[in-house]
Amino acid sequence: MDRIKALRIIENRAAPNCRRVRIFLAEKGIEIPYDQIDIMAGDHFKTEYREKVGTYRVPVLELSDGSFLTESIAICRFFEMENPEIPLFGRTQLEVSLVEMWQRRMEFELLWPIAFVLRHGNPKMTVLEDQCEAWSVANRPRVLVGLETLNKQLTHNQFIVGPNFSVADITAIVAVNFLRTIRVEIPEHLEFLLNWKATVSQRSSIGA
Amino acid sequence: MDRIKALRIIENRAAPNCRRVRIFLAEKGIEIPYDQIDIMAGDHFKTEYREKVGTYRVPVLELSDGSFLTESIAICRFFEMENPEIPLFGRTQLEVSLVEMWQRRMEFELLWPIAFVLRHGNPKMTVLEDQCEAWSVANRPRVLVGLETLNKQLTHNQFIVGPNFSVADITAIVAVNFLRTIRVEIPEHLEFLLNWKATVSQRSSIGA
Repeated sequence: MDRIKALRIIENRAAPNCRRVRIFLAEKGIEIPYDQIDIMAGDHFKTEYREKVGTYRVPVLELSDGSFLTESIAICRFFEMENPEIPLFGRTQLEVSLVEMWQRRMEFELLWPIAFVLRHGNPKMTVLEDQCEAWSVANRPRVLVGLETLNKQLTHNQFIVGPNFSVADITAIVAVNFLRTIRVEIPEHLEFLLNWKATVSQRSSIGA
Repeated sequence: MDRIKALRIIENRAAPNCRRVRIFLAEKGIEIPYDQIDIMAGDHFKTEYREKVGTYRVPVLELSDGSFLTESIAICRFFEMENPEIPLFGRTQLEVSLVEMWQRRMEFELLWPIAFVLRHGNPKMTVLEDQCEAWSVANRPRVLVGLETLNKQLTHNQFIVGPNFSVADITAIVAVNFLRTIRVEIPEHLEFLLNWKATVSQRSSIGA
């Protein structure tokens, strides 16, 4: 059987999950064509897209066997195996486990709460979400808890899982940059988080 | 440096995330001591637990270096590397990516919606959750969408990702068994899902 190849990514440049994949690929030096889909026009909900891809999510990786891979982290893992020389999911048994743990915590405790505040609370987001405004309100304080958690972890680590930049940092920087959409500033006393943000923001991948 | 070893798991037998880890370990034939924590008494919110573990979640894996690993899937991945001969996160580049994709989809589209319905809607769950009842209500229809998605994927697959049982099946069976807590039955027309459930339920690991 021929080896399955990555053909292109269907994405939307404004979506944070898409940005996670773009940064990941830039870190690995992997180039791939990106095709844009207009999610604010609801194009990802159209029957043609959903039947082809199997869900309404972005981003999507089209593969040479005709299948489509969704879920940002699944797409990243595909490329981790494509170019394992620059490991972003960890190296040792412990580091791999800690990257998984922190990648998930940064999703569940920071990126999702920010997304919930925005998608369930901003009138412009009705095209993307059956809104539940109470859920937007409930998540706003959780965002600050997530920022405190990240700051605490960074008090004794250069990156989130020690000395090596990982996919956990990618999820976290995308979440932190997404704060502006809900008009939240990082509190000044979270200095380890602010220093980490300044350092990570200098990486060339962050502009991807 | 000595190799880091798994010492024990702190968990609660009734919690679905804990059950995921128990089934995973049973599939791999790995034995480890389990210590129970009473989450319905709020013991995981106590300062001593949170300071030790770094979060209020269960389950937690205690390691021989004195650290604690949380997040069910991170714990499972630790043990995947401990005993890779029985792979539950996939074998090839494509299978590993598809397991990641389906594991996540079964969490986000099925297990979390069920958990949200229960935790935000059942008065007994106030000890576990700052409840947002509207979020419970919003998630109930999503549970049925998740079951339809699972059934559709199983129309052409023995297990969720083809011929091999994986952690995606573990997440899905734990979710499906958790339906009783929100009094939802699998609709009769989802016959592929019902057949898969009957097959998976016969595995000895499921009683773990």
